Amino acid sequence: MLTDALIGDAGRMIELGWKDGTRCRFHAMWLRDNALDDKTRSAGNGQRLITILDIPAETRIGAASIKGNAVEIRFVPEKKTVSFPEAWLRANAYDRAEARQSGWTADAVQRWTKATMQNSVPRAGYPKASRSRSVLREWLLAVRAYGFAVMDGLPAESGALCKVSDLFGYIRETNYGRWFEVRAEVNPNNLAYTNLGLQAHTDNPYRDPVPTLQILSCIENTVEGGESSVVDGFAVAAALQAENPEGFRLLSSHPARFGYAGLSGVRLQAKRPMIELGPDGELICIRFNNRSLAPTVDVPFAEMDAYYAAYRRFAELIEDPAFEVTFKLEPGQAFIVDNTRVMHARKAFSGTGKRWLQGCYADKDGLLSTLAAIEHGFKEAAE
Amino acid sequence: MLTDALIGDAGRMIELGWKDGTRCRFHAMWLRDNALDDKTRSAGNGQRLITILDIPAETRIGAASIKGNAVEIRFVPEKKTVSFPEAWLRANAYDRAEARQSGWTADAVQRWTKATMQNSVPRAGYPKASRSRSVLREWLLAVRAYGFAVMDGLPAESGALCKVSDLFGYIRETNYGRWFEVRAEVNPNNLAYTNLGLQAHTDNPYRDPVPTLQILSCIENTVEGGESSVVDGFAVAAALQAENPEGFRLLSSHPARFGYAGLSGVRLQAKRPMIELGPDGELICIRFNNRSLAPTVDVPFAEMDAYYAAYRRFAELIEDPAFEVTFKLEPGQAFIVDNTRVMHARKAFSGTGKRWLQGCYADKDGLLSTLAAIEHGFKEAAE
Repeated sequence: MLTDALIGDAGRMIELGWKDGTRCRFHAMWLRDNALDDKTRSAGNGQRLITILDIPAETRIGAASIKGNAVEIRFVPEKKTVSFPEAWLRANAYDRAEARQSGWTADAVQRWTKATMQNSVPRAGYPKASRSRSVLREWLLAVRAYGFAVMDGLPAESGALCKVSDLFGYIRETNYGRWFEVRAEVNPNNLAYTNLGLQAHTDNPYRDPVPTLQILSCIENTVEGGESSVVDGFAVAAALQAENPEGFRLLSSHPARFGYAGLSGVRLQAKRPMIELGPDGELICIRFNNRSLAPTVDVPFAEMDAYYAAYRRFAELIEDPAFEVTFKLEPGQAFIVDNTRVMHARKAFSGTGKRWLQGCYADKDGLLSTLAAIEHGFKEAAE
Repeated sequence: MLTDALIGDAGRMIELGWKDGTRCRFHAMWLRDNALDDKTRSAGNGQRLITILDIPAETRIGAASIKGNAVEIRFVPEKKTVSFPEAWLRANAYDRAEARQSGWTADAVQRWTKATMQNSVPRAGYPKASRSRSVLREWLLAVRAYGFAVMDGLPAESGALCKVSDLFGYIRETNYGRWFEVRAEVNPNNLAYTNLGLQAHTDNPYRDPVPTLQILSCIENTVEGGESSVVDGFAVAAALQAENPEGFRLLSSHPARFGYAGLSGVRLQAKRPMIELGPDGELICIRFNNRSLAPTVDVPFAEMDAYYAAYRRFAELIEDPAFEVTFKLEPGQAFIVDNTRVMHARKAFSGTGKRWLQGCYADKDGLLSTLAAIEHGFKEAAE
């Protein structure tokens, strides 16, 4: 409950107090720009109807009063009164003393290792997930929290992986098609299409924007070997940072280069760091792929040896079985990985039998949007 | 022409000299990792066949000799000899003293203003671009250099914009569909579907990854007003940086938040800065959209006033007619913008007459890959 509202700095800010002792300051300009009235934001679609240039630069708070669960603020020189619900103010408060260490991750992200994950791989059945919003919600929550999940109960047929992406969003079509075959070929244009083992990697780091989700589904799998495994790149990055902060700094503060030109008419290249941080130090993306790493040319000569040592150590940790969760895909099963975080690998497999997988890319915007819409719907239904 | 090769630091590096006086150092580990032999890289698809862990940590250069246009290097303890062409070495040299100022842009990027661009808008006819690789190449080069280009000679019919994306890549499907209608509607779920003017903006900053290209095509346009305009966000960012380095720092070092929830089942949100820099200070993305800017909660209280002042100044510069290039799309015309750089705007238009545009998103990976493949083909043909 709001207890007091003190205008300060000649109307440039206001300090609000709550009964629980919380105190939060807000700037006049920030409040005016984020006003919730229907002249500022469209009541229909929520979009802002004005630009920052429609707001006088000299905007101040002329008066403020607590009215029930809201604070009513009078802006001058506009002489405009806007009501801000206290719940909205608390949800959007920015007045906090918080200097987070570089490499922090969002609250929704839960790092994992083999010990915490091997026996609790998140999984849902397609028939249920496609019918029940709450089953789908749990599965999407797992993808957000852990960066991967398994789905079973799919038809063991070509194209079934699109049923998975249809649950939450849209396929990202690329030069590999809307989806692509993953099976051993003669003269493959990509090493993925052999029976070689593949080191844990993220897909397509040579593509910018990188596909943020990948789905791999299984149609046939009668070979010996060929198990899939996943590694939490955020957990490995944290381990690297803990034992070697300078190595973490090197991999996050210099771009790597990636390239692919294995198909006619295709010459992809990208320049992005192996460990990407947001401007506020949030860990937001891992890119790791030995096959497509191009010559590193953006690291100063004096730091190259240390950079390579950090890259080597990062690779060693990625290969450490303590981080690896393994499963063998059966026909009718698929798994999804957050390709900005979770690496996937494949064990080598025998030449006898058949291993037929299909893969496709999709993006996290759609997945997180669908999850947020389901959660919003549940919340509204509960109210 | 290579003149000398001096092994240094007990074999950890080599210094190469060229007849023109250029001297470049390379590390043993870097050279080994980037070896071009067919045991290291697949001759078929160019992918690396080994991982960093396959290379001994104690790798040194045991011997080196110049052989014609290449240097032959013997790596120990592997006892492996690899030849590096001098042209490849020069193209991939990283031994340079270069501290670039934050906000620098790639060599291929050419910033523009109204004065330099209004009378030389890059443009190609679809019939020619679809038949001639060199016409297509010029058009793609313009998109890379200037971040936008016009295409005319398209059929003035629904779906024609897909012909443009088919020239170089793939549509990014979203909740708006593979493409979407842009015309005045009753109860629009997006302000784009009204006859209001729209401030210069980038599209969908609430989406992560953001669509990196947008195509808008015109089927009918008999209204008064409704002109399109484009603004080079990189030029505006440079102008802001020149007059107010601290404002540039604020907008590039703190994330903004963007959101959109105007359609049922859709709740998109993203957290990215208005001015995005790579870890090496390269200017890589502009996000600017008054309609979908959500409350800014990642700027410390003490910097919020200065942040807002910088945002206001950035908006003023974006509105400055000196940066604005205007044209009116005719039926059968389309334009493409690099949505990570060039903002587009629309003037308000009258209620009489009809304005029917269609829009779609695509991505730069495909466009730049197609351009690189065309250029590679021309180079090979010339050799």
